[in-house]
Amino acid sequence: MNSGSVFFHSTPVFPRGFRCASRNVGLKPSARDLTLFASDVDAAAAAVFTRNHFPGAPVILGRETMRGGVLRAIIANSKVSNVATGLPGLENARRMASAAASELGTSPNRVLVSSTGVIGVPLPIEKIVTGVVGMSGELQGDPMVGAEGIMTTDTYPKAISAAVGDATITWVAKGSGMIEPNMATMLSYIFTDAAFDAPTLDRMLRAAVAPSFNSLSVDTDTSTSDTCVMMANGLAGDVDETQFFAVLRDGCIRMTEILARDGEGAKHMIRVTVDGALSDHEAHVVAKSIVNSPLVKTMVHGADPNVGRLLMAIGKCFDCTIVPTTTGASINGFPVVARGERLSFDDAIVRETLSRDVVDIAVSLGVGQGFARVFGCDLTAGYVEENAAYYSS
Amino acid sequence: MNSGSVFFHSTPVFPRGFRCASRNVGLKPSARDLTLFASDVDAAAAAVFTRNHFPGAPVILGRETMRGGVLRAIIANSKVSNVATGLPGLENARRMASAAASELGTSPNRVLVSSTGVIGVPLPIEKIVTGVVGMSGELQGDPMVGAEGIMTTDTYPKAISAAVGDATITWVAKGSGMIEPNMATMLSYIFTDAAFDAPTLDRMLRAAVAPSFNSLSVDTDTSTSDTCVMMANGLAGDVDETQFFAVLRDGCIRMTEILARDGEGAKHMIRVTVDGALSDHEAHVVAKSIVNSPLVKTMVHGADPNVGRLLMAIGKCFDCTIVPTTTGASINGFPVVARGERLSFDDAIVRETLSRDVVDIAVSLGVGQGFARVFGCDLTAGYVEENAAYYSS
Repeated sequence: MNSGSVFFHSTPVFPRGFRCASRNVGLKPSARDLTLFASDVDAAAAAVFTRNHFPGAPVILGRETMRGGVLRAIIANSKVSNVATGLPGLENARRMASAAASELGTSPNRVLVSSTGVIGVPLPIEKIVTGVVGMSGELQGDPMVGAEGIMTTDTYPKAISAAVGDATITWVAKGSGMIEPNMATMLSYIFTDAAFDAPTLDRMLRAAVAPSFNSLSVDTDTSTSDTCVMMANGLAGDVDETQFFAVLRDGCIRMTEILARDGEGAKHMIRVTVDGALSDHEAHVVAKSIVNSPLVKTMVHGADPNVGRLLMAIGKCFDCTIVPTTTGASINGFPVVARGERLSFDDAIVRETLSRDVVDIAVSLGVGQGFARVFGCDLTAGYVEENAAYYSS
Repeated sequence: MNSGSVFFHSTPVFPRGFRCASRNVGLKPSARDLTLFASDVDAAAAAVFTRNHFPGAPVILGRETMRGGVLRAIIANSKVSNVATGLPGLENARRMASAAASELGTSPNRVLVSSTGVIGVPLPIEKIVTGVVGMSGELQGDPMVGAEGIMTTDTYPKAISAAVGDATITWVAKGSGMIEPNMATMLSYIFTDAAFDAPTLDRMLRAAVAPSFNSLSVDTDTSTSDTCVMMANGLAGDVDETQFFAVLRDGCIRMTEILARDGEGAKHMIRVTVDGALSDHEAHVVAKSIVNSPLVKTMVHGADPNVGRLLMAIGKCFDCTIVPTTTGASINGFPVVARGERLSFDDAIVRETLSRDVVDIAVSLGVGQGFARVFGCDLTAGYVEENAAYYSS
């Protein structure tokens, strides 16, 4: 579960045969808002999507597209999410796939469409179909160019890459708000030149997403656009599956941590590890309760050693087995709770440890072997300000 | 479910035979921090407490005390909650009951103890047992004096009263933060001179708490001290039970609305009504998802017509029956969503309606007869600031 064992490139690169381009086509005033990721050859592909009951048109279309198990490209726009837009929205998503397919010389059912931004606003499809023309001539090898194009309220673009055997894996993602993925994260694209078939990719992707993107929560709100897709074009040939999966999972965890650190308004990443639960499921419930508690999040934000709030957040998991006398907790390794009681400690030490960029909260429930680790961030006035004025901005 | 039908006194009064007193005994710098509520005669009593797995010592003792079904008094301190304090904490709660019993000339098992404030800090019991001496001579008839004594981060004291037949019901409560009661609210005391036995009180209290205090959420965090207790001293004789219950329930709903409006940092009360759900339970789950969504709360705070967030919050109830084509929503009566799609509307109108003190969100799911109404408030920078520095303040 530790992402420290993988070597990530200091500057991200693409696997063989993958390139991207991004442009401003007038959806935003001047920032890049349309992005194309393409493989030179067809790639086996797998994806997981949001479980929200109101999936966006791109997700509805994406589920259909992924049945083929083959992709050549991804086209993504930011600013408008094409969600809650009905049949015209679905038609617009199809036009977006067709426009990218024409530009790249492939078929629309090999293009995955993503849209991210405001919900319920019609997609400015004409700007997109016009804007994509000529982008195939701009495809180049820096994943950061694509990462920049898919940003909404992210404060910086997010791409990483790592080698595995002779192959490379590259992750490009966006996050920030409306994030408590269930099946996937906001938008997360994974590219590799290793050769795997679609069913194998699907199995590995689902296993890698569970301890990473599905264990992330910025604000408990599950987006209607969450998409995590993986493309493998095989140009590097076969790679050991066990070794590949380890790197895939660790890269997903690393990208999850990057998303948590850039949560809307966030100043700290909070990582909560629960062990000794009755089951992994109960460990996950308790860990989520802590990482999502507004009072724990504000405690971290204020670096205020009001650690009784940890007990509150554990204790409100009504349906979990919690035994006060076996419950302990620590912050960055410093014990703050034992046997269900707050320990006496020097406030200044806890203040110092809560002030660090990464705040690791570890809870031991002492009733079984269940384990979970989840990722989140603090709650700040910046989050409130950003989201009180998101639509009009 | 509408609290508009009950006449509440313009200035709250106590029922016959109830009085209160409050003092500063040095727990806070100068504000009142110790409060006594007393009946001149023994009163039948019922209570519901927090479901948090780490109940405070006063809750543990309170469950024991309530077995008798009889109370003479309630003693409550603010500033320190006596939670996560182990056996010494329980012993301190017992000493607090004994001190109040001595002062009032009754037995400790007829005194309910409440403590509210910071978790995990030892109760300054000597200040309390010394401080209570002489308070029986200060008992008087204004419930606001008691309401003021139990405040923590509340910005104003909360008491209301209403007549029912020849009897009176008086509600005194505190709220503000760490509020998503499950069985009760933070501290809510209900006094009446109507004559009912303890089992009848218990049945009525549980039925009244469900659509009121148990439908309130300020921040999804469930306190370790939640207590709702009701005392009936019988001095007004028998009262029609049906009529009494209607007033009891409507007063609990009114007090819940008062607590929501004074949620930490809140500028708006949000009332969410869901009908047409498959069951009342599913209606409650969807209503809670909306009222607790940080993105809905900040939308109200910013009066920003980003109403797609309502669909997001409905849609993330994975286990509920949600059919996009039958889903509609309105804000203060103004339709914003129909058939699962955002309607086109004049932004200025939605901005105006979101700016009102009370924002009523109504959702119709169109799949059954399930109904629920819940209460909450907007999320503001004030909430963050208050809770980032609560412990040290």
